[in-house]
Amino acid sequence: MRQMEPVEPTAVTLDDEFWNPRLETNREVTIEYQYDQLESSGCLENFRRAANGETGGFEGMWFADSDAYKWLEAASYVLATTDEPDPELADRVADVIDLVAAAQDEDGYLNTYFTLEEPDKRWTNLNMLHELYCAGHLIEAAVAHHRATGDESLLEVATAFADHIDDVFPDRIDGAPGHQEIELALVKLARVTGEERYVDLAAYFVEIRGHDDRLEWELANPEDIAGYDPGGDGIVEGARGVFWEDGEYDGSYAQAHAPFEDQEAVEGHAVRAMYFFAGVADVAAETGDEALLTHLERLWENMTTKRLYITGGIGSAHEGERFTEDYDLPNETAYAETCAAIGSIFWNQRMLELTGEPKYADLIERTLYNGVLAGVSLDGTEFFYDNRLASDGSHSRSGWFHCACCPPNVARLFASLGRYLYTVDGRDCYVNQYIGGTASVALEEDDLTLTQETALPWEGDVTLEVTAPEPTTATLHLRIPEWCDDASITVNGEIVSTADESYVSLERTWDDDRIAATFEHSTTVVEGHPAVAATAGRVAITRGPLVYCLEATDNDRPIHQYHIDATTEFTSTHRAGLLDGVTVLEADATVPSLEGWDRTLYRPAEASSNTITPLTAIPYYAWDNRDAGPMRVWLEAQ
Amino acid sequence: MRQMEPVEPTAVTLDDEFWNPRLETNREVTIEYQYDQLESSGCLENFRRAANGETGGFEGMWFADSDAYKWLEAASYVLATTDEPDPELADRVADVIDLVAAAQDEDGYLNTYFTLEEPDKRWTNLNMLHELYCAGHLIEAAVAHHRATGDESLLEVATAFADHIDDVFPDRIDGAPGHQEIELALVKLARVTGEERYVDLAAYFVEIRGHDDRLEWELANPEDIAGYDPGGDGIVEGARGVFWEDGEYDGSYAQAHAPFEDQEAVEGHAVRAMYFFAGVADVAAETGDEALLTHLERLWENMTTKRLYITGGIGSAHEGERFTEDYDLPNETAYAETCAAIGSIFWNQRMLELTGEPKYADLIERTLYNGVLAGVSLDGTEFFYDNRLASDGSHSRSGWFHCACCPPNVARLFASLGRYLYTVDGRDCYVNQYIGGTASVALEEDDLTLTQETALPWEGDVTLEVTAPEPTTATLHLRIPEWCDDASITVNGEIVSTADESYVSLERTWDDDRIAATFEHSTTVVEGHPAVAATAGRVAITRGPLVYCLEATDNDRPIHQYHIDATTEFTSTHRAGLLDGVTVLEADATVPSLEGWDRTLYRPAEASSNTITPLTAIPYYAWDNRDAGPMRVWLEAQ
Repeated sequence: MRQMEPVEPTAVTLDDEFWNPRLETNREVTIEYQYDQLESSGCLENFRRAANGETGGFEGMWFADSDAYKWLEAASYVLATTDEPDPELADRVADVIDLVAAAQDEDGYLNTYFTLEEPDKRWTNLNMLHELYCAGHLIEAAVAHHRATGDESLLEVATAFADHIDDVFPDRIDGAPGHQEIELALVKLARVTGEERYVDLAAYFVEIRGHDDRLEWELANPEDIAGYDPGGDGIVEGARGVFWEDGEYDGSYAQAHAPFEDQEAVEGHAVRAMYFFAGVADVAAETGDEALLTHLERLWENMTTKRLYITGGIGSAHEGERFTEDYDLPNETAYAETCAAIGSIFWNQRMLELTGEPKYADLIERTLYNGVLAGVSLDGTEFFYDNRLASDGSHSRSGWFHCACCPPNVARLFASLGRYLYTVDGRDCYVNQYIGGTASVALEEDDLTLTQETALPWEGDVTLEVTAPEPTTATLHLRIPEWCDDASITVNGEIVSTADESYVSLERTWDDDRIAATFEHSTTVVEGHPAVAATAGRVAITRGPLVYCLEATDNDRPIHQYHIDATTEFTSTHRAGLLDGVTVLEADATVPSLEGWDRTLYRPAEASSNTITPLTAIPYYAWDNRDAGPMRVWLEAQ
Repeated sequence: MRQMEPVEPTAVTLDDEFWNPRLETNREVTIEYQYDQLESSGCLENFRRAANGETGGFEGMWFADSDAYKWLEAASYVLATTDEPDPELADRVADVIDLVAAAQDEDGYLNTYFTLEEPDKRWTNLNMLHELYCAGHLIEAAVAHHRATGDESLLEVATAFADHIDDVFPDRIDGAPGHQEIELALVKLARVTGEERYVDLAAYFVEIRGHDDRLEWELANPEDIAGYDPGGDGIVEGARGVFWEDGEYDGSYAQAHAPFEDQEAVEGHAVRAMYFFAGVADVAAETGDEALLTHLERLWENMTTKRLYITGGIGSAHEGERFTEDYDLPNETAYAETCAAIGSIFWNQRMLELTGEPKYADLIERTLYNGVLAGVSLDGTEFFYDNRLASDGSHSRSGWFHCACCPPNVARLFASLGRYLYTVDGRDCYVNQYIGGTASVALEEDDLTLTQETALPWEGDVTLEVTAPEPTTATLHLRIPEWCDDASITVNGEIVSTADESYVSLERTWDDDRIAATFEHSTTVVEGHPAVAATAGRVAITRGPLVYCLEATDNDRPIHQYHIDATTEFTSTHRAGLLDGVTVLEADATVPSLEGWDRTLYRPAEASSNTITPLTAIPYYAWDNRDAGPMRVWLEAQ
């Protein structure tokens, strides 16, 4: 098993024409608004009241504590990565940490829903009350804050809670959580504290899932667990539906239908699945358990060959926000939750680090530019939870303030985007994503500074300036993206062979060198597997990492009338003034002739009743930023 | 304005290979079960309790009385049309009539919901409480029973109620009902009683609709009307939603958004629209108001050129069971309610009688064999409310006992099917539908007996034996169906010209003559108007009056993989043992090659990666009578 180390976002300063405006919006709009929401939703008030020993009056969803933790995590990344100090944000973070710390019980337990509402029912409802989920987000926030600032205040809170959990599980309670998150968090905590027992606890939560009948017992005995409302409308009632299938318990919603290594396919709630698999990968990394990794590879194969949208989106069903069946990938009703795409990036990054296989970096790139990026409006204030691949015009993003999970998840991903660029393994450094900026890369013995510039996702030109305090021998591996037709690479002007490699390896003594790469790419018309009903008779358009779509506002005919095929020729034009700057694709498409339809709704089909008309496609991520109207990724094939 | 007279079902004895089993099932299964339901649902008990002066305890929907009336109507048609007397059914009908009569108030009012639950709130909620709707069904039942038996008992009840309504409207209450039905019923009553004032009252209900603000007032003042529940969950609350659009009152759900002649398109709840237009046609017939007919023709044009499924189904949206927008005809979510298709037949028959234009008979035929017939399982015990044109396999008919409106509507249509065959105008007799049996046709002075035999819908052969007590001069007009490629007609073996006519007119002195017609038809591949998104890149298959579909069980490949086009050649084979006997269509279709897809979900489109495989299509009406599985009417066009 490989174990590449990521270059942490604290060591990366991004400076990228495409990403700068998005990251700035994330810092200055999204994270600000999210803080306001913590206050207005009552989330911070829950901590204050718990700290003051009050009871009752909990506000928000029962897992609202995690909103504060996700905000702390995102804000910590911002503190770590902005050029100039932000004392205002630092103070605000410190204040929230003080609040969180004050709400912690003496035994380390920390969950304001239970402290305020059901103090005697801790750990009785692992399915839905999300104590372990909230604990995981607390730990992730604490690790991020510690790495960003060196401060230990939140880490101490998280460690105390983790120790409490370690006391409880499995000796007093034996069971897995309904929503994974604690697993990957405990491994992060182990890495920052050096405490192996957190890995053991994470491994326990992975191992117990699907083995015990704890979740089933809880759902069969609602009156014995927290969240029970004798009137029948409590948390417990809402939770039961997703675990029942045809009148019987089915744990697949929470990947608890079978032990991990007996799970044949990616099943259930897509976010839970992604957090789970990320946690399993972390446990595998720490324990060296090859069997876990091998089974993760099997599940990845199932997901990517049978249950993945072309955008990288996953989980096709709105009901249960879940995976359904192989090849069931409807467009108009696609759920493809933004959080699930983010979770997929978390999992794929771990797979990349454990295997060194660039296919995982390819999927991260595809998911980032399409499945995730479509989830946020260009101005950073509106969000899609569900990312449909076709719309009749009635589907638009919602203001972030109506949402609970996706906006903060986008915020923490964007604020930590630097972590996805480079990985290191001894004297080898891997360039996984092409996003501009400067990184300080610590190799086994020496440091390199990599300064990347790129025209992606529009053009395939990338330059990397490599500098070292003194000449340093190392191998740089550049990923050749899956969408690249032809890669040409020079080092200080000298051509390097790139034949048939998915990583081009450049071994030399680096001093002050310049790598210039061009990843040629053309517009490609793509078809889906014949088993996918939703893509039957349809094709999609991609260019580089981007999936394109037709939006009504750019096209004269109703968009369902445009037919293209593999031979359609596209021209690409960058329009700086459109949608914050996008490259549009134009072609002559076939549309049905409108002749002979007067007062006719159906008629015998005619072999040739088509005409030619221009088509304009825009990147999928940019749709629904103008007037609402129909949109399609999959166009009719002619 | 024409005014053809229909030949009433009492004068027609059907005997048809295709229809006999369906009509027998209707009589022996559906109408029996429907009676059991009247008892078990509490419907008849409501009448008993109202008759006994009890209060409270009303069971079922507030318009449940109409279930009894629809059953009486269907049962009356059965009594009128079966060869042998059915004393058991006759007794049962008499018993139900006694119950209904006993529940009538002294002033003629009759509605058990109000009598039991809200006697002081009669006529306060015209929108939803359906007193006039129930009254209309009572009248229809009474007229049917009187025509079938000559008995006046139910007619007296209906007349007394109609007189009461005539007292109340418009002098004491001025307003139109939320659900039309009273209009067409009053005209039927006028025709059977000769009382012109019922026509006046029907004309009033047509005229007032969309003119007054009664419906809007009721919805804005729920506490003042019947059905109000202070807890907020009463009938009134449920009703309000369909009348509100973007926060404002919108009467279009009940065709009350504008006066009839200002209504630009067919709007709102499709069943209400059809009953309304049928009633308007009746009023036009009685009053000779050409403007009403002209506007009905405009609305028919809108419906048939922009808002009609290829099956004759109408009302595409589940929400509100209503028409939506021009060309909005989704397949997977098609509502196309069975009752709306039946209502369309009611309306079209009236348009045919008023105009003599065969296009209305064509649409009746298409609707009957597809949009209506699909609504009933072959064994007559399960029903579709919503008739989708594509299914992923999860949609199946429900037992009739779960339903309220469609099964009894099917029952009364099938039991009165004979009425759609012939119309008479002076010495002219029109043959509108080709269904076997014997009819006694009263011309201006003489009678003809027409004995029809036909192989439809499978083959286009029709024979008509025409006999008369003595030689009779008359013109018989045979409809040439819209789907007919080539018609050949002989009278006593002599060829008759059929050039370019939609009715072939045969004028002669009839004695004992034999007409033989052959309506040639081939399998036709049909396309939809380019504005219809749901048929973009798709084609459908028709043969004669039948729309065909692909069902998974007949085909090796998933049905979304089959591509056909205008050049596809079909063979037709009648299979007596399949689905009670159907003609299947077979062809070589194009399907995607399955090569090169190993471990691949998306790939660059290849210009030619297709192969040929056999396809088998069955009539749409027969789908979902075997194992549940996917179905499609609209196939991919290659």
